[in-house]
Amino acid sequence: MSPAPPPAAPVDPARGALRPLGVDQVTISGGFWAERQRVNATATLAHCEAWMERLGWLANFDRVADRSTGGDRPGWSFSDSEVYKLLEALCWEVGRTGDANAETAIKRLTARIARAQDPDGYLNTCYGHGTRPARYSDLETGHELYNVGHLLQAAVARLRTTGSDDLVDVARRAADHVCETFGPHGREAICGHPEIEVGLSEFGRALGEPRYLEQAALFLDRRGHGLLSDIPLGRAYFQDDMPIREADVWRGHAVRALYLTAAAVDVAVDRGDDELLAAVRRQWERSVARRTYLTGGMGSRHQDEGFGEDWELPPDRAYCETCAGVGSVMVSWRLFLATGDARYTDLIERTLYNVVAASPDSAGTAFFYANPLHQRTPATQVGADEVSPRAEAGVRAPWFEVSCCPTNVARTLAGLTAYLATTDDDGLQIHQYATGRITAGLPGGRHIAVRVNTHYPADGTIRVRVTSPEPAEWTLSLRVPAWATGATITDEGRTRPAGPGTVRVRRTFHPGDEIVLELPVRPRFTWPDPRIDAVRGCVAVERGPEVLCVESGDLPDPDRLDALVIDPAAGISEVVRGRFTAGTEHRWPYAQAPATAPDASEWFGVPLLPYHSWARRGPAAMRVWLPVAGS
Amino acid sequence: MSPAPPPAAPVDPARGALRPLGVDQVTISGGFWAERQRVNATATLAHCEAWMERLGWLANFDRVADRSTGGDRPGWSFSDSEVYKLLEALCWEVGRTGDANAETAIKRLTARIARAQDPDGYLNTCYGHGTRPARYSDLETGHELYNVGHLLQAAVARLRTTGSDDLVDVARRAADHVCETFGPHGREAICGHPEIEVGLSEFGRALGEPRYLEQAALFLDRRGHGLLSDIPLGRAYFQDDMPIREADVWRGHAVRALYLTAAAVDVAVDRGDDELLAAVRRQWERSVARRTYLTGGMGSRHQDEGFGEDWELPPDRAYCETCAGVGSVMVSWRLFLATGDARYTDLIERTLYNVVAASPDSAGTAFFYANPLHQRTPATQVGADEVSPRAEAGVRAPWFEVSCCPTNVARTLAGLTAYLATTDDDGLQIHQYATGRITAGLPGGRHIAVRVNTHYPADGTIRVRVTSPEPAEWTLSLRVPAWATGATITDEGRTRPAGPGTVRVRRTFHPGDEIVLELPVRPRFTWPDPRIDAVRGCVAVERGPEVLCVESGDLPDPDRLDALVIDPAAGISEVVRGRFTAGTEHRWPYAQAPATAPDASEWFGVPLLPYHSWARRGPAAMRVWLPVAGS
Repeated sequence: MSPAPPPAAPVDPARGALRPLGVDQVTISGGFWAERQRVNATATLAHCEAWMERLGWLANFDRVADRSTGGDRPGWSFSDSEVYKLLEALCWEVGRTGDANAETAIKRLTARIARAQDPDGYLNTCYGHGTRPARYSDLETGHELYNVGHLLQAAVARLRTTGSDDLVDVARRAADHVCETFGPHGREAICGHPEIEVGLSEFGRALGEPRYLEQAALFLDRRGHGLLSDIPLGRAYFQDDMPIREADVWRGHAVRALYLTAAAVDVAVDRGDDELLAAVRRQWERSVARRTYLTGGMGSRHQDEGFGEDWELPPDRAYCETCAGVGSVMVSWRLFLATGDARYTDLIERTLYNVVAASPDSAGTAFFYANPLHQRTPATQVGADEVSPRAEAGVRAPWFEVSCCPTNVARTLAGLTAYLATTDDDGLQIHQYATGRITAGLPGGRHIAVRVNTHYPADGTIRVRVTSPEPAEWTLSLRVPAWATGATITDEGRTRPAGPGTVRVRRTFHPGDEIVLELPVRPRFTWPDPRIDAVRGCVAVERGPEVLCVESGDLPDPDRLDALVIDPAAGISEVVRGRFTAGTEHRWPYAQAPATAPDASEWFGVPLLPYHSWARRGPAAMRVWLPVAGS
Repeated sequence: MSPAPPPAAPVDPARGALRPLGVDQVTISGGFWAERQRVNATATLAHCEAWMERLGWLANFDRVADRSTGGDRPGWSFSDSEVYKLLEALCWEVGRTGDANAETAIKRLTARIARAQDPDGYLNTCYGHGTRPARYSDLETGHELYNVGHLLQAAVARLRTTGSDDLVDVARRAADHVCETFGPHGREAICGHPEIEVGLSEFGRALGEPRYLEQAALFLDRRGHGLLSDIPLGRAYFQDDMPIREADVWRGHAVRALYLTAAAVDVAVDRGDDELLAAVRRQWERSVARRTYLTGGMGSRHQDEGFGEDWELPPDRAYCETCAGVGSVMVSWRLFLATGDARYTDLIERTLYNVVAASPDSAGTAFFYANPLHQRTPATQVGADEVSPRAEAGVRAPWFEVSCCPTNVARTLAGLTAYLATTDDDGLQIHQYATGRITAGLPGGRHIAVRVNTHYPADGTIRVRVTSPEPAEWTLSLRVPAWATGATITDEGRTRPAGPGTVRVRRTFHPGDEIVLELPVRPRFTWPDPRIDAVRGCVAVERGPEVLCVESGDLPDPDRLDALVIDPAAGISEVVRGRFTAGTEHRWPYAQAPATAPDASEWFGVPLLPYHSWARRGPAAMRVWLPVAGS
């Protein structure tokens, strides 16, 4: 169907409403995301490699190659995957900028990995060698297939940006080994952590190898029948509680649920399995309506890093793992390419600004793992030389014992340009706004080129200037976020309302034509569904795509964030009006009359800051949802 | 100091404001607790023994004796302690009623345990024998000393009800082994789960062996200095993050924190360590004011079965482990004996009715482990023949893989009579109200006997009739709970107000004299501190000492508990006035305007039931905190 060569993008479905553009067709040259891509490229990639070298996670590959693997292997069973996610990030970076250091790093890492691969394609540093446990002896928690899935995603990035090389060969042998071992005539089993499925489906697409998609489909079909052992957290933890096409909502471990769902979209789309696609869309609808935080974050429980029940969305114990944000973007992007429904790109924008962008610090060398919406007391700083044993939020840490998030942020930021725009036979669609350039080829030899200029999200003006050398007739589609009530579009001197959803301009565009979209990014109050018990009587403030929050250090008394109430009737600018309620100490906190506030403080202005920037000035208490005075 | 022989009670401090009475001095003959003691004696005790036999937890002792212990030992490392807790329950039962079956069971279990004890006193079925890991090779999670602590508590019950026997001898050898191994000249270590401390202190009291109290004090002093390894949950999990006398609040694993604190009171009281006692009282104050549920339940987090931060009290994810309720009673009772402050007995009453009594079903053969205040969806029933792998609440289960709660309920109910009343040199104090008899000896040969008649808590009238054969001058003190505004006391035909706290009658009492306390047990609304974010805009209903709740099956539409709001202004009888808010389905649950309720239902009566009785009619959704209409 696509008239163009495969794009240098992480997802390239066989069919769908829209076609992705590659990291070579879209560039981000300034603003919010350009800065994050720069920091990612210049600091985070090397940071990740250095930590994995230091902790021996890279040397694990050498020890397999040297046959010296033993009982004291450092890292968890999924540490190999961190190397692969770093590789994927490096591949997108090379595709995006041609960076020579990244290219060198890819070759350096690939050589060490390749040496560790067994002749039959098995590749794992935790199982199957020396005194380590046997291959596939613990599918519930061993992560062997999960690791391979990430290897395949790295190979996809390599294939689509540079072409086949040793990394791709290693991945192909690993994928073949998986298909032979777990294929229709092989062992009837699945991996406790989904990821192999989404790796196989896309690697199959990239290589044109249908067997890999079929293996992904087989793993999906096997799931939900109790092939994995029951565990105290229940089989829902790894989505083995019911077949995916029967489920109505996401449940269990959030990252697992989302990686699995991404693969389900791939399989449904490429096989034309409308029932499966409908099941995933249904799950997305209910999960987004009832199990998703204002930030786009997913995962209400620490215990299993998992979804809670409907309406169970505590801001203080929100887990909202950074990786779940990445997984959510993976799912929504696939559903968007299949359907063209702007609600998916709305959620992507929300998640990118308020989960993915919240994780790294401004230096790109410390990360949030969990992303709660309420921090009751300032956390303890983690030193720049420390590995945090805890995923608990409150401070960004340079590395974690379970360190899935830093490399996930790295690969997402490196490949972010692939999520900004799409084409179809009729034109160009822009979904995420950043200063930069976009080019696309359309059927009939039409060539589109535009330049986007904006200070979004600080400012709501987005200018799209046509830079194609020749006039051509096509449709420019721009996403208008659901929150953007009152947006306008100006074209050829005429301004008209641009309702939430998609606004389209179809005409013959000439070089130099400029279309201006105005999104109202002034702060606004946002109210929760009354069934979200944990934030009853509270209001939040958003500004454009950014969720805002209050940090304790900005209050007249930093120790009294727990007593802050605000007055929404006083309106909103860059601050809201708030005061402290009575700080009376009760000996028993439940009384026979409602609390009154006789000694409430004077009103004062409460400054707000973007949630993604919280704790950048050091540990702090923080809250997104603000109690309304008198509630 | 005590003029009487040691009471048949679990706690007998060297000094204090009040002296405990034994299970032979207090009887409960009818009403709420009598029924629970009857079910406990006739069903629960045998139920627990049968499950431990069936699962091989008892045979673990035989296998140590037979030198056949291997790698496939059933049960967790703390399964021995369940046998000891059952033994303690049986001992109180024998002390309370002289039950012959219980006596036989004690001898039967003791014989099997005694055979497994090593010549040097070490006694454990999980470590130190056959192919099992070595003794004390995993103090963080191995529970070896924890197990011994429970053995010592069982031996205390035996000593104080029957006298020395094989069980006491086994316990003494085990305690001596612990003192030798971990004494001042032994290994400087502590157990990951406190319990040995409280076992040693009381066993030392019961035997008059000061070395045991000194060892308990040594374990306490060692704690908080990082002798245990750090773990992902942090050292606060096992209270090794700071010395107990420096802490201001309970934190980490709730049962651990409470067992440790109980020992700290014992050590502080017997040694006259006022600083330590003050530290514990301070911790109780803040923990009760900011980290305790309306039910008295403690533990806000599933992840670590632990306390949350101040004001972190989510009703839906309340863990409120049954064992933490038992631990809270242990702590408050010790503080009460030391101080005589009725706030401790208030909390004991609250916890007994709303945590301990909530756990067992009416047959005494299924138990809640966690006790949340909000169940969003009905849980799945656990069969009568099933071991639940999950502590998650929602249904009572006959047994658990981690089955600490059933035997803890059993020992608490069997010994409950020891928590009802106390004496001092001047008279009798009654703290918990139940129909039955109380006798006590006072200095000077005075003998007190009273009979209590009441239908409490169903009814608020409590009649105390003096049954002593001779007139005597003494003081009768009755606890008036803090909630009992408007209580009265009637004596010699005169009725006067009885303010919350303690009401006293001092005179010469004659046989047949009757004092009547009237407690207002009508339903009342209870409002939370505004800093408890999770229940903002909600109200609860209590009736006497019972917290009430709404079960989904009692609503006009059982599927709409999440939309229920109530109108407190309409008053309260046995029902409150409520209706459903709009059930509109939002696609995104956060909006630019507060939710309105255009299609709210008609008002209807919402029946309430005691929280301890919820889910007795089968799985249900339930909530204690009810959203107020218009909040």
